[in-house]
Amino acid sequence: MATRARGQKFAKESGEDRLIARHFKPIAWHPGALGLTDDAAMLTPPPGHTLVVTADANVGGVHFFPDDPPDAIARKALRVNLSDLAAKGAKAAGFVLTLALPKGVGDDWLKAFARGLGADAKTYDCPLLGGDTVYTPGPVAISITAFGTLPKATMVKRSGARVGDHVIVTGTIGDAALGLKLRKERGATKRWKLDTTMRRHLLARYLVPNPRNALAEALRRNASAAMDVSDGLVGDLGKLCRASGVGADVDVARVPLSKAALAVLVADPKATETMLTGGDDFEVVATVPPRKLKSFLAAARRTGVPATGIGRITAARGARFLGPDGRPLRFVRTSFSHF
Amino acid sequence: MATRARGQKFAKESGEDRLIARHFKPIAWHPGALGLTDDAAMLTPPPGHTLVVTADANVGGVHFFPDDPPDAIARKALRVNLSDLAAKGAKAAGFVLTLALPKGVGDDWLKAFARGLGADAKTYDCPLLGGDTVYTPGPVAISITAFGTLPKATMVKRSGARVGDHVIVTGTIGDAALGLKLRKERGATKRWKLDTTMRRHLLARYLVPNPRNALAEALRRNASAAMDVSDGLVGDLGKLCRASGVGADVDVARVPLSKAALAVLVADPKATETMLTGGDDFEVVATVPPRKLKSFLAAARRTGVPATGIGRITAARGARFLGPDGRPLRFVRTSFSHF
Repeated sequence: MATRARGQKFAKESGEDRLIARHFKPIAWHPGALGLTDDAAMLTPPPGHTLVVTADANVGGVHFFPDDPPDAIARKALRVNLSDLAAKGAKAAGFVLTLALPKGVGDDWLKAFARGLGADAKTYDCPLLGGDTVYTPGPVAISITAFGTLPKATMVKRSGARVGDHVIVTGTIGDAALGLKLRKERGATKRWKLDTTMRRHLLARYLVPNPRNALAEALRRNASAAMDVSDGLVGDLGKLCRASGVGADVDVARVPLSKAALAVLVADPKATETMLTGGDDFEVVATVPPRKLKSFLAAARRTGVPATGIGRITAARGARFLGPDGRPLRFVRTSFSHF
Repeated sequence: MATRARGQKFAKESGEDRLIARHFKPIAWHPGALGLTDDAAMLTPPPGHTLVVTADANVGGVHFFPDDPPDAIARKALRVNLSDLAAKGAKAAGFVLTLALPKGVGDDWLKAFARGLGADAKTYDCPLLGGDTVYTPGPVAISITAFGTLPKATMVKRSGARVGDHVIVTGTIGDAALGLKLRKERGATKRWKLDTTMRRHLLARYLVPNPRNALAEALRRNASAAMDVSDGLVGDLGKLCRASGVGADVDVARVPLSKAALAVLVADPKATETMLTGGDDFEVVATVPPRKLKSFLAAARRTGVPATGIGRITAARGARFLGPDGRPLRFVRTSFSHF
């Protein structure tokens, strides 16, 4: 027990805290953040609206590589939260950050971290409201609680899928899981015969996700259920189905893949499992009633977010992923667990 | 990099997550928590009210001893946040929790942790809204974001103190810092000639603070400025003064001390510095205009929270702590910093 008591609120005033304040203050443009000079922030949803609250923790050596660029670490930490807000149909409103830093972390690291965080806060219009920085004898740990707003009783839940609904996913699936494999397995680039562009694409998809906040409004207006795909499409769609008391039949051939992922698949057909059960996609899986499909797809096109129908909701229990022969694939594991 | 991707939301469904859900679900009675079965929670302040948001991280070996009882660790993690809400005049509304757990942490630990957390959530009417549990190769780390509500534009800030206001503190000051010394210095009990009751009192004050949420409404109605005392009265009052652009003269003899702290002072007059600059008091320091003093003290009496006038706000800069001879005490350090 080297030290004593509380962490430093951003509002604290030792030399190092002034440093932190200098880095983080520009991200705290929300009037309720009070310039990070007080102990708490104020946040009020617009009249008739509710706040949507989500939280995710990211730990060095677990959720990111300790030598990842600090700006990328910051972006990912914020974006995984933004991804939850997007899937729930909420407009981003702000976030609070607690940051546990080991002794070795210097001003350069912190500056780059704040730069990445600030750039994304701007991009997604999601200012910093406050937080806390503390010392840790462990690795860097980032906990973010993010807030969104939406009209009352319109949050898109996991539990609203109905038989006959279309199953939609955004973007492409499996890239990030392949990107992680590339970082962990030295021979993978060669084995998968990837060119530089493809390799870079997969690595980038793991390093910094691309949350679908542009689609939030379209989801809120049209989706019966949704969640973000963070722990693998197979497992996450399974959870959505269980929450809704339904099943799903997914045509694996329709699951959207990037060029790079297709190349991997050609070289290594077994990679399907990695793609479908791997994590870190941070795409959205949603269910859309047939009568709303056209309106949803049109809205998606307007936002520029790719949305692909991959199957339908069924009355059975559980999500089935059907191969080219129409028979369900079997996976060794359906979803990732840390424990 | 042993593992891959996201932490487990409480809503995730591996065996271990079901365990977590079982422990934490009873604490999530807020309807907006959706029984911890979704990716996000919903929170709406009452009409005309705003949310007050505060966050604190607590790390094993830094903010608590790793072998502290898990229920006490949980209570402290929640209470330090409740203390911020109290000082700001807000009524507690709920909290989200991210919990980073090392491999060794078993079900017994988690059960006791959840028991402590749940008991305090009940006591302070502050339900769990959601969160995330993740694996960490470091020590247990707990990040809590807590929410309170109050009528718009009535949050008690640091910056409202005016010349002539009374400086008030709740409870007693210095106990927790002495309690920590007792844990770290084997000979301290003897040196300070403490009996068992006194020793226990000081240890308990460090282990689990006693946030002053009962006083929130009285502060909101009467205080011109307030903050909780987490990093030592000297440093924290200094911050309040700087935020308000004022000074303060505090009569050290009027700073309320427990019987145990008085005993320490008799044995070791130098302990004054530990008491006044040590941390973890989690009392409130507030400034109250003269015309509201009577109403504030009456309200405090009704809630049973001891409140003591210790000085006045001045036009000078900085908080001065005046000794028996009327001269300002000098401290080696005024406040604690981790860095």
